[in-house]
Amino acid sequence: MKKLLLAGGAGFIGSHLVDRLLKRNDLDMLVVVDSLWTGRAENVDHIRDQRLVLVRCEVEHFKSDFQFDEIFHLASPASPPVYMREPERTVSANLIGAMRLLKLLKKGGRICFASSSEVYGNPLVNPLPETYRGSVDCTGPRSSYDEGKRCTEALLFESNRVRGVDVRVARIFNVYGPRTRADDGRAVSNFIANALSGKPIVVHGDGLQTRSWGYVDDIVDGLERLFWLENFNHVGAVNVGNDREISVLEIAQYIAGLIPGTTIVHDDPAPQDPTNRRPDLTLCRRILPGWSCKVPYEEGLVRTLRWFEANGEIAEMRATMRSRAGNDRHDLK
Amino acid sequence: MKKLLLAGGAGFIGSHLVDRLLKRNDLDMLVVVDSLWTGRAENVDHIRDQRLVLVRCEVEHFKSDFQFDEIFHLASPASPPVYMREPERTVSANLIGAMRLLKLLKKGGRICFASSSEVYGNPLVNPLPETYRGSVDCTGPRSSYDEGKRCTEALLFESNRVRGVDVRVARIFNVYGPRTRADDGRAVSNFIANALSGKPIVVHGDGLQTRSWGYVDDIVDGLERLFWLENFNHVGAVNVGNDREISVLEIAQYIAGLIPGTTIVHDDPAPQDPTNRRPDLTLCRRILPGWSCKVPYEEGLVRTLRWFEANGEIAEMRATMRSRAGNDRHDLK
Repeated sequence: MKKLLLAGGAGFIGSHLVDRLLKRNDLDMLVVVDSLWTGRAENVDHIRDQRLVLVRCEVEHFKSDFQFDEIFHLASPASPPVYMREPERTVSANLIGAMRLLKLLKKGGRICFASSSEVYGNPLVNPLPETYRGSVDCTGPRSSYDEGKRCTEALLFESNRVRGVDVRVARIFNVYGPRTRADDGRAVSNFIANALSGKPIVVHGDGLQTRSWGYVDDIVDGLERLFWLENFNHVGAVNVGNDREISVLEIAQYIAGLIPGTTIVHDDPAPQDPTNRRPDLTLCRRILPGWSCKVPYEEGLVRTLRWFEANGEIAEMRATMRSRAGNDRHDLK
Repeated sequence: MKKLLLAGGAGFIGSHLVDRLLKRNDLDMLVVVDSLWTGRAENVDHIRDQRLVLVRCEVEHFKSDFQFDEIFHLASPASPPVYMREPERTVSANLIGAMRLLKLLKKGGRICFASSSEVYGNPLVNPLPETYRGSVDCTGPRSSYDEGKRCTEALLFESNRVRGVDVRVARIFNVYGPRTRADDGRAVSNFIANALSGKPIVVHGDGLQTRSWGYVDDIVDGLERLFWLENFNHVGAVNVGNDREISVLEIAQYIAGLIPGTTIVHDDPAPQDPTNRRPDLTLCRRILPGWSCKVPYEEGLVRTLRWFEANGEIAEMRATMRSRAGNDRHDLK
């Protein structure tokens, strides 16, 4: 029986992956490490499984008496306002987190990393194959996340080259769905939160920038298949996302249509916000035959909206926003 | 009076910077931290200055009771064979090194970082302005260095954005000259070492790939002017290098001509070796008026050759090569 470790397991995508991992019969322990910086204990509250061990800890500082067969590294904020507020902590969670996790990996074990389409920056090609080397401003305001992901990929693939570690890296494109934080700061959750609060939906720029919106169940299906795969001979990252591109404005308009009385206003463009980003899924489809994002955005948005309504996220968000002003600054120390 | 810290001060470029720093009258202490991984105590052996304090320590682990007014981060291998052998340690020296150094910086202090033209990867434009975002394969065999430098730039510029730290980053192009290790693994030192040992000069590929070879005195002049500058309003990295492009083969032929009987042979191209790389110096010349690389390669190569001959580097290199096989592996632990 295997011992597994998931860093970031109380987060949005991480908690969905916990649900999937616990359906496996080949493990007797799943340790979830999460600092609850952006993850939330509520995301795993529903689980009644003796194999699950929850540890509240920054991944960089996690210590263990034993080593793990499979490690999943999803410990990172993904929300631009969060990582732009604490860039060093963001780099640290990704990169020093990965260094720490490599030390906890059994010889012959497997490490899986949630990278991001942000490694491509503001791309000059469309769609994006994994071979595209990216267009990231390494001195810009989004760089802690983008370069933190890139450097962590480098570290992991070098550990494969030098020491033969089994490395799986998914470059995840935009994801939305239940368990997103209402204050996450990305488009779908922002739009729904505003609309449910009776406020206008705020679209940055003209809204014609497009995204490949992947519903979380579809994305986690892809991660599960990539990360569980027994025989994996590919060395390199794999795009996981939806290749149907939809504009930010279309999403805003659809949500506005679901909640009567909602208006849309436009604001300044976000700094260094990419104008488009669509995965080339050729490699992904070769490795995971038959996989694709199956949930259309109209259905995904309705499911997400219902979850927000059912979980009282909006009231919680307002409380969070109030308390955050006071105590959510972490100085470098 | 100021307290200064230089990480990597026993290294090739670092030790030249130590010489320059000690000509300043406004400091009462210069702490040089060097692990001697690729630096050498001999490089600072000639110094008789009570203000100099040498500490043998990895920069990531350096602790100090006081903080520093100016910090110079040059602690990184720069030789491809070295960083490809120990990629995690390379990332760590650069990035965790920078995190550590930021903690040792006085409020209002200045941190200066030796970045590299490698942040541009195998570029698609020529010459290279600082705004070019690079073409680095973040999963490739050179990525620990390239992405380590990129991510460290990100960390530093984010510390400027979030906390107002005075950050100076030089993207240094190819440098050669006295105090290069004979076993450094880069072209000029390889060529000279082989020629002095009576072996053929080995050129990777056809040798038509070009480099902007900067003689170390010129490059350190540029660093000194950039790092010492009192009023510096630019936020972003600055290219420092020679913009006269010379082919690898031309350098090989010139060295062969200096040492009678030397032959040139060709070998496979190095992995992901850039085909050309020349700095756009527009920004550098605006910030440092009048600065340029003044030493022609013919003169710089002769000076470098004389230094190698005078310092018995070749005998030492042979000894190093023998001992290295036994004990120069550092596992991740």
